[in-house]
Amino acid sequence: MKANFRSDNETPVAPEIWAALEQANQGTAFAYAEDPWSAQLDQAFSELFETGTRVLPLATGTVANSIALACVTPPWGSVFCHRGAHIVSDESGAPEFFGNGLRLVPVDGPTGKLEPTALGRAIGQSQGHGIHSYAPATLSLTQSTESGTVYTLEELDALYAVALDRGMATHLDGARFANALVSLGASPADASWRRGAQMLSFGASKNGCMAAEALLFFGHPERLETAERHRKRSGHLLSKMRYVSAQLLAYIEDGLWLRLAAHANRQAAAFAEAVETHPEARLESPVQANEVFVRWTAPALEALAEKGIGFHFWPGQENLARFVFGHSTTDDDTRALIDAIRH
Amino acid sequence: MKANFRSDNETPVAPEIWAALEQANQGTAFAYAEDPWSAQLDQAFSELFETGTRVLPLATGTVANSIALACVTPPWGSVFCHRGAHIVSDESGAPEFFGNGLRLVPVDGPTGKLEPTALGRAIGQSQGHGIHSYAPATLSLTQSTESGTVYTLEELDALYAVALDRGMATHLDGARFANALVSLGASPADASWRRGAQMLSFGASKNGCMAAEALLFFGHPERLETAERHRKRSGHLLSKMRYVSAQLLAYIEDGLWLRLAAHANRQAAAFAEAVETHPEARLESPVQANEVFVRWTAPALEALAEKGIGFHFWPGQENLARFVFGHSTTDDDTRALIDAIRH
Amino acid sequence: MKANFRSDNETPVAPEIWAALEQANQGTAFAYAEDPWSAQLDQAFSELFETGTRVLPLATGTVANSIALACVTPPWGSVFCHRGAHIVSDESGAPEFFGNGLRLVPVDGPTGKLEPTALGRAIGQSQGHGIHSYAPATLSLTQSTESGTVYTLEELDALYAVALDRGMATHLDGARFANALVSLGASPADASWRRGAQMLSFGASKNGCMAAEALLFFGHPERLETAERHRKRSGHLLSKMRYVSAQLLAYIEDGLWLRLAAHANRQAAAFAEAVETHPEARLESPVQANEVFVRWTAPALEALAEKGIGFHFWPGQENLARFVFGHSTTDDDTRALIDAIRH
Amino acid sequence: MKANFRSDNETPVAPEIWAALEQANQGTAFAYAEDPWSAQLDQAFSELFETGTRVLPLATGTVANSIALACVTPPWGSVFCHRGAHIVSDESGAPEFFGNGLRLVPVDGPTGKLEPTALGRAIGQSQGHGIHSYAPATLSLTQSTESGTVYTLEELDALYAVALDRGMATHLDGARFANALVSLGASPADASWRRGAQMLSFGASKNGCMAAEALLFFGHPERLETAERHRKRSGHLLSKMRYVSAQLLAYIEDGLWLRLAAHANRQAAAFAEAVETHPEARLESPVQANEVFVRWTAPALEALAEKGIGFHFWPGQENLARFVFGHSTTDDDTRALIDAIRH
Repeated sequence: MKANFRSDNETPVAPEIWAALEQANQGTAFAYAEDPWSAQLDQAFSELFETGTRVLPLATGTVANSIALACVTPPWGSVFCHRGAHIVSDESGAPEFFGNGLRLVPVDGPTGKLEPTALGRAIGQSQGHGIHSYAPATLSLTQSTESGTVYTLEELDALYAVALDRGMATHLDGARFANALVSLGASPADASWRRGAQMLSFGASKNGCMAAEALLFFGHPERLETAERHRKRSGHLLSKMRYVSAQLLAYIEDGLWLRLAAHANRQAAAFAEAVETHPEARLESPVQANEVFVRWTAPALEALAEKGIGFHFWPGQENLARFVFGHSTTDDDTRALIDAIRH
Repeated sequence: MKANFRSDNETPVAPEIWAALEQANQGTAFAYAEDPWSAQLDQAFSELFETGTRVLPLATGTVANSIALACVTPPWGSVFCHRGAHIVSDESGAPEFFGNGLRLVPVDGPTGKLEPTALGRAIGQSQGHGIHSYAPATLSLTQSTESGTVYTLEELDALYAVALDRGMATHLDGARFANALVSLGASPADASWRRGAQMLSFGASKNGCMAAEALLFFGHPERLETAERHRKRSGHLLSKMRYVSAQLLAYIEDGLWLRLAAHANRQAAAFAEAVETHPEARLESPVQANEVFVRWTAPALEALAEKGIGFHFWPGQENLARFVFGHSTTDDDTRALIDAIRH
Repeated sequence: MKANFRSDNETPVAPEIWAALEQANQGTAFAYAEDPWSAQLDQAFSELFETGTRVLPLATGTVANSIALACVTPPWGSVFCHRGAHIVSDESGAPEFFGNGLRLVPVDGPTGKLEPTALGRAIGQSQGHGIHSYAPATLSLTQSTESGTVYTLEELDALYAVALDRGMATHLDGARFANALVSLGASPADASWRRGAQMLSFGASKNGCMAAEALLFFGHPERLETAERHRKRSGHLLSKMRYVSAQLLAYIEDGLWLRLAAHANRQAAAFAEAVETHPEARLESPVQANEVFVRWTAPALEALAEKGIGFHFWPGQENLARFVFGHSTTDDDTRALIDAIRH
Repeated sequence: MKANFRSDNETPVAPEIWAALEQANQGTAFAYAEDPWSAQLDQAFSELFETGTRVLPLATGTVANSIALACVTPPWGSVFCHRGAHIVSDESGAPEFFGNGLRLVPVDGPTGKLEPTALGRAIGQSQGHGIHSYAPATLSLTQSTESGTVYTLEELDALYAVALDRGMATHLDGARFANALVSLGASPADASWRRGAQMLSFGASKNGCMAAEALLFFGHPERLETAERHRKRSGHLLSKMRYVSAQLLAYIEDGLWLRLAAHANRQAAAFAEAVETHPEARLESPVQANEVFVRWTAPALEALAEKGIGFHFWPGQENLARFVFGHSTTDDDTRALIDAIRH
């Protein structure tokens, strides 16, 4: 393949993460997250987020999201999210499984973002039949969004306020949190718990790790205990957890995660610029992180694919394509893509 | 109260059903649905529906719907239904509970009815992400609908065909099946399995019984075995099931159920006529069964309530009211209502 | 059949209960347990039990037990009970279903009773592997037991203390609570919450009702809210709940329930006496309530059955038979039985 | 620590596996198990097992076991296993979670092994109450057992026959399958499907991998489809699955897995010999794989721990200790242990 923009899930492991894995691979270590690497997570993330943070290391984003929701949502509770959210569109019922039948309520909003008014209305309408209705329990936002956009801090404030004012719990799906942070130029704390997020699915796999995600709890320490039970019971308490935790520690050390994300965002921006000046292709949403959605003619997209450019035809829409830029995308890759759409 | 139109769930037991209960209350009888009354159900319903029918007697409509869906939908399967359907709006997650996290996909449609094109589109869009999406498994229609309308036989044909063509299972929520049947003037068979319904939640509680519903299986006898397991495991295998089965037998004997429903429908029609000639109030949907939805001003509706007329303010809409007519609604009741809206 | 001792589940409805049902069958009443009968339950049971009691009316004992356990046991929690308990032997996984995979831990004990030492040991052994083990959460006792015996008040004290000392929740399965109470000569309060029971499945169906059980909560009022959600979500919120609540009110009025149980116990005692003086048949356990377990030769039991006496061959044991005496068992019935075993 | 025998879960990654991981870490690769490494699994394992084998790569043994059981056991079905089995003692309800409330039935047997007669009796006793009982669905054996013993091929034949004759499904928990195979000197096929096992949790993490297990299906290809749904829905479909599959391929290449296991078994045997000649310490079970259970006085075991020898005090038994030998255990480690128990 000339260059591959199908997904940041397809990238290899970054060298710094690899080195950390090698270092962790010395001698024996306590199993089941009782190893020295796992023991450092709470402190390392508490420093990074400037507040007491409890960390649950995990191997996938789906389980991070699902455990987060199950910790705060009863089976008769509903979770509000954008219609395009990963939890509703791409996890084949994992939240419903972990949450024993909880309900996800998808809400529409432009460019992948929820809006406070629509959110409030959806919450209100969902509970009209008392005990015959689900009880609104949780708000889950995605940052950066599934459309490649990034909520501003003010937008986060307003949305989380809608939930918190109603006594609901709050979650942030940060599968691409690093990309959003770079885009915002904000601190981890400013972009998460200071906005109202109580739990954060802190993604790392897409941005340089092999298989490592951290579910973070800001406050409510009893939730971690519940989360640990869910992790064990779903088969996610890896015996050799040291390898996951070592990835996470290396990922946040000295800002590696932000450097990797910044690189990816820059590649996306370069491509976005090329699309903007293209005579036919159009950006579907503002490009604010590492994903670029392009609306073009179906034949043009087909031709691009035939040139050996890897990307994702968006399901159900033959003239919409997604290009994702990762930590391992090279300048040459991006240039090849830009050349390919120009000619 | 002057007259009560809040819900047919509030009606008492019809005299004929009461007599059957009394008759069943003689001496001892085998427990757990092994009694002589339960033993007659399959034959009685097979005759009524002109085809081999397996019957699961139950005490509520919610459990009938939930078991039906759980019998044919895997946990990673989705059930398509109208946005206003009882299963999605009024059962607080019972289908998700019995179905271990299955997903209900609400689809919009005017006057409480699904339309084939919109249904097909919704099914298509739901499965774009392969194993990351739920698998379309089941179509559930409601007859009469939650808006008091009735699908024509042709509409049922077209909708069930959408599902059957895709290998999906089919269910009919007939909480008010009797009312629909009277309205259609069709036979039970013509209005159910001949249209493509494989399972029918055959409602009786609203229309004269104390607590009796039958989940009917047309074909696929292995589903009954699964259904029996679900019934036991959810605590719905009543020890003294004879009382439920005796109600069901009396309900369908000599067309009692249709006479009761016809009475209710007539009352509704009389009121609908009065609304149609009213200077301000408006029917929200065509009145085809025993429910009448009236759009009027909020103060007018408030005033009506203050006169001692019982009805239901529709959740979230202060100027929409629902009036339900039952087997026990008297001509006097309906006349009192008509008088009340006129003055 | 000459006389039927298969199960008290096979008895008809007692006349006083029937009268109450008839009385409830007047006009319309609010649905979904908002009716006047249901509204009286909390007060009526609070008086009966001499303490603030919250009441959840239900149609079966299995759902009462299952909701009770699910209210206090997390999915990773275990429930300790006697190996013969109904919840573990006869509910086909209903507790596991409502409790989303909770685990029942059966403990052995003579004559159907748990013993404190064995219970404590079982709890201790169950949790040796920390997060890899289930967490001991609940103790469920059955009174009268599945062997027809009755725990003394001192035995209840000692057993519940084992649980409460470890911070566990406590439940009493009182499917035959009336029979136990008559046997003990104790007050409802003395035989339940004063011993440490926090929840009581208060059985009524077996002892004169049609389908009526009450799940009682002593203290911990927040559990009722959870219980109501479980009831709705499992399809057990009957629309015409008035008929269940009316049964319950009549059942406890003026001591009817105790008179009915006393009658049944007396019949059982008369038969037990006959067995004790029998040359071959033997009582398997002391007869302290309304069930009599008789060990005899298989041919003798077969012969008894052939004489038209209804009873239950105990599963897996061809020479053990169970005889149950109910509120509707007549002196003639019992005499016929006694005659039949003598000749 | 002088030497660590706590668990093979604490060992690092074997060099050959590491090399394979490095090789897999080149460029981009399709996500979600659509990569070239995952694509080779079916063929590689089919050759190894001399029959058509479908492979589900996974990260933990708990999820492998849980998915296997959930694929063949309905929520109302029971799984029979040894009382000491990992699924019942160490997975905190994961099988119950994946199986939506299925029930595990622990059966006793000496030296960690089930016996056909006891198994048959347990199955028979479990189903005496018809629909009120769980339905026997599955037999799960563990090889090598949790007591460090190994079933002979004849024992496997007899046990699986008990299940298969009753139409039950069969599973083998092979967390330490390699150690058992080396001990038996049998081929993978002879020790699994030729004995009657339909599914095998093929462990690799304990024996040299980082986090890699394979759930193998022999026959019944439709089960793999179900298994894939369970994997996705439980958050176990790793985006970068190539790293798991690459481990598995390297693990079985050129017999690496058997060499690693043979090494561990030899170390265990050397220690077992030393225990056998010890004046006080005693082997609890025959040592046939890589685990050694030693019964000794509590003070002696305490003293051993104080010398810096790592091992596991068996829960609930202060005079029983477990020593596990792994692929990375050195001759020096074992010698240090032997010296320590001698002096």
